[in-house]
Amino acid sequence: MPRIDGARVVADLKRLAEFGRYKTGVHRPTYSPDDVASRHWIADRVAEAGLVPAIDGIGNVFGRNHVARRHLLVGSHSETQPYGGWLDGALGVIYALELARAFAADPGCAGLGIDIVAWADEEGHYGQMLGSRSYTGAIDEAELAACKSRDGVLLSEALEAAGFAGRPRELIDPEHYVGYLEAHIEQGDTLDSNGLRIGVVEAIVGIRNFRVTLTGQQNHAGTTQMARRKDAGVAMVRLATRIHDRFAAIAGQRTVWTIGRIVLDPNAPSIVPGRAEMQVQFRDIDTAYLAAFEAALYELVAESDRAGPCAAAIEPMAQVEPRPMDPAFRESIEAAAERHAPGLHISMPSGAGHDAQILSHRLRAGMLFIPSLNGVSHHWSEDTKEDDIVLGAQVFADAAMLILQSARG
Amino acid sequence: MPRIDGARVVADLKRLAEFGRYKTGVHRPTYSPDDVASRHWIADRVAEAGLVPAIDGIGNVFGRNHVARRHLLVGSHSETQPYGGWLDGALGVIYALELARAFAADPGCAGLGIDIVAWADEEGHYGQMLGSRSYTGAIDEAELAACKSRDGVLLSEALEAAGFAGRPRELIDPEHYVGYLEAHIEQGDTLDSNGLRIGVVEAIVGIRNFRVTLTGQQNHAGTTQMARRKDAGVAMVRLATRIHDRFAAIAGQRTVWTIGRIVLDPNAPSIVPGRAEMQVQFRDIDTAYLAAFEAALYELVAESDRAGPCAAAIEPMAQVEPRPMDPAFRESIEAAAERHAPGLHISMPSGAGHDAQILSHRLRAGMLFIPSLNGVSHHWSEDTKEDDIVLGAQVFADAAMLILQSARG
Repeated sequence: MPRIDGARVVADLKRLAEFGRYKTGVHRPTYSPDDVASRHWIADRVAEAGLVPAIDGIGNVFGRNHVARRHLLVGSHSETQPYGGWLDGALGVIYALELARAFAADPGCAGLGIDIVAWADEEGHYGQMLGSRSYTGAIDEAELAACKSRDGVLLSEALEAAGFAGRPRELIDPEHYVGYLEAHIEQGDTLDSNGLRIGVVEAIVGIRNFRVTLTGQQNHAGTTQMARRKDAGVAMVRLATRIHDRFAAIAGQRTVWTIGRIVLDPNAPSIVPGRAEMQVQFRDIDTAYLAAFEAALYELVAESDRAGPCAAAIEPMAQVEPRPMDPAFRESIEAAAERHAPGLHISMPSGAGHDAQILSHRLRAGMLFIPSLNGVSHHWSEDTKEDDIVLGAQVFADAAMLILQSARG
Repeated sequence: MPRIDGARVVADLKRLAEFGRYKTGVHRPTYSPDDVASRHWIADRVAEAGLVPAIDGIGNVFGRNHVARRHLLVGSHSETQPYGGWLDGALGVIYALELARAFAADPGCAGLGIDIVAWADEEGHYGQMLGSRSYTGAIDEAELAACKSRDGVLLSEALEAAGFAGRPRELIDPEHYVGYLEAHIEQGDTLDSNGLRIGVVEAIVGIRNFRVTLTGQQNHAGTTQMARRKDAGVAMVRLATRIHDRFAAIAGQRTVWTIGRIVLDPNAPSIVPGRAEMQVQFRDIDTAYLAAFEAALYELVAESDRAGPCAAAIEPMAQVEPRPMDPAFRESIEAAAERHAPGLHISMPSGAGHDAQILSHRLRAGMLFIPSLNGVSHHWSEDTKEDDIVLGAQVFADAAMLILQSARG
């Protein structure tokens, strides 16, 4: 099995975190000067590892092994959330780099090639998983033309400023790869709180989002008697409470749901709200649970509408289907984990979205998680024990080897 | 009894509404150029009516009768809500002007003087009922120095621009007046929906405001399992629902309560809210109900805090005590109403705040309401039938006469 160099992995992660350092984390939005500099730095490391580097027209960094006969594509994204953590994305890129170096150094890996990728904009600064969707042909020119940042900068302007405009966007050749492998911090606390060291991702959850709107009548909070009110805020908190109760009653073991956004109009202490809006989101790897939640939500909104005095309406928003990971890849990751951390690994869903779900439409795909301390992510304080980082790299290398070997057979 | 000229009242109201006209309403914030121009216009009308006009250092317009032996102070505010109605405030000012003219024209009113006032900033563009609180000595220099508009303009800057800076602020001489009388549109629909024409205000409601804060833990909406969450949004909608239920169970016939402002933090669809805040307000003329609501609210917040997983805290905000109107003044208004609209008047609380509540701390005070069509106010579409405007003015004049006559005895 290829041997990874743990000290080198940690040193590279720390060096990459210098691009956009913020406190103990990193602020490196896609196409920012720090992000562009870090992509060139990754391309240089790729070349040092003996691969052929390329940055494509959307900012994806590739490192290709033109010598091997069988190839596994390995990577993650390299930009961060605003004032985010140093490992979210970066970990999977540096693991890929280390795997390429470890495979190249090991005569036992002859003919087996690790191709590296650092995807652009998984974090959605300009769009939805732009880099992996571009690579898999899952985005069209019209959507790309409309992509812009929260500050209103067009994707095309950002690519121009980054120096990536005019380059071709690379497209996948599914025949070329055995599959795609991605490592990532868990971002939840399942591993950390249970003393586990490796998560084998069984599937990436599906997500359904809905906008629920209550429409009543705006009025003076002093002169409007209770019996005459159509208070959209009252209708909303009552409906939200019923949604939480009903969802709790029908949820699977790992279904999650969130009402994360609530807006009252006009949202003033002395005005009876005339309108209220909330966004209801739920996630599960099982479409049966997603369908049951959706049906329950529509039923509750209809009940609220019938009961009055406010009108209640529901409108579907973004929706992502669950993506199971390849069963054979899962077995290989599990076998590798059992070798290095016997009894300290678990099969689990990914509650967050990852580039692997996009790749899974075109390639067999697998994912490995390492712990996040206290489950923190999307925050500069995100961190993982160095021992876990090193162990994860070795498990990941073994898993890649097992996958490439079994593909050989 | 003095006879009012209904056509003149309506004409003056329409002329005053030209200052800042917006659709069928008026946009005339305090100290705006339109507001300043309208105050000079009012001062000119006051002089025409034979009174001595003055605009003081906070923008209050006075018209004083230096001939009469007994004086009743009559008026309301003359600025409007943003894009507000043409009668809210203006009605009481023009009624006062008409009373002064009618009393002057009637030999039977000899020795009885109507002093006019158009208060500044009852609507709170820069502070809380600035004009009447300045006049009654209920505001200090420190508070005045801190007053500013939502746009950050200091009161002192606005007064400078308005040309009122440097003038003395007039102060009440309570011995000089029999009392204070104010007419206003109802702003609710009690009169309009019951076919009534005059409301005799028995008291202005007390208002209590509280800020309730739920503190949990911000987290990723995909990776954080339900059992581990401390979702401040869930805690808030559950607590708000319990508040609405409990308040409904213990409310008096006319108690009103409102949760008009809700803020989640960070208020994003894919983030478990770490913090939530709501403002809870209730109003009644009976302090026993206000006390019961306050006790229930503290109890519910404490229950929510004990139940967890989010901390719940409550903090009192602005509070106004109920202000009963003078019983003898109420009887006079009732008698006048019964003469001109027999059976079509009602004793009622004022659910909105008015300058009369400020004056009531220093003078005997009374208020008369006329209907608001559909109860609309604080909106440009606010309106009242012309017949009701004219009838109200005559009832108001009779009431003023009865009050001054009885004071004479």
